Amino acid sequence: MSSVKFRKILKKDLHDVFLLLNQLKKIDLSSIDKKTAWDNFSSNSSSNAIVGIYNSKVVAYGSVVVENKIRGEVAGHIEDIVVDSSVRGNMVGSSLINELIKICIRKNCYRVTLFCKESVVNFYSANGFNVDSVNMKKYLDSEK
Amino acid sequence: MSSVKFRKILKKDLHDVFLLLNQLKKIDLSSIDKKTAWDNFSSNSSSNAIVGIYNSKVVAYGSVVVENKIRGEVAGHIEDIVVDSSVRGNMVGSSLINELIKICIRKNCYRVTLFCKESVVNFYSANGFNVDSVNMKKYLDSEK
Repeated sequence: MSSVKFRKILKKDLHDVFLLLNQLKKIDLSSIDKKTAWDNFSSNSSSNAIVGIYNSKVVAYGSVVVENKIRGEVAGHIEDIVVDSSVRGNMVGSSLINELIKICIRKNCYRVTLFCKESVVNFYSANGFNVDSVNMKKYLDSEK
Repeated sequence: MSSVKFRKILKKDLHDVFLLLNQLKKIDLSSIDKKTAWDNFSSNSSSNAIVGIYNSKVVAYGSVVVENKIRGEVAGHIEDIVVDSSVRGNMVGSSLINELIKICIRKNCYRVTLFCKESVVNFYSANGFNVDSVNMKKYLDSEK
């Protein structure tokens, strides 16, 4: 799969990326206002997202949020990693992570973090990440 | 400690916040270019930081990074929570987390995440967070 090419996401990729992300977490795609989603995403300079293209098809998506900390440090947070089920097991995931790390280096991040299920800790360990701490989550919908 | 008041961080708070954060992770404060740190921080609209004031002194600091996801969802990431050692054990931490959650709700976040040491899982559980997954980290300095 060395011919997977990575590039910055473009608006035209949206539908393909939505389908891909639905392999990770299903949401009702008809409920998305695509224009608003793109405008909000692309106006937030902290978010950096890339797609992997193979045979003219979007087969991978990943993003990294770049955080300016108050003491001047810059930290990267990898989010929403997905590789199409048809190409898994071909190092596409590792290449995707590597591309996101390159973005972090260009943005002068001193570290990059991510949170993941226990089942993929070995994958990220093989890509240079160490288990660091516990990720905790709170849903807010009910409080709006 | 009900008289701790929270407000958005101002440039004049920087030195106090730096000292506070040094209780969490020591860095050489003389190495910080305060103007650049502030300019970068305040120009990044994703970062929202607050301070807690008690007796005219900065006794708490916390920030939340607001992420626009590609499918239109908004996610909050709490970062850098610190309460001055002199006021710990007085619910200041819980009030701080509560203020940051309010920001997340105002920004339409559907969820908020954070990563923490095992030793403070009970504190965050008491504040409505559930253990979700594993946080992993990679330092990049050596690759620059």
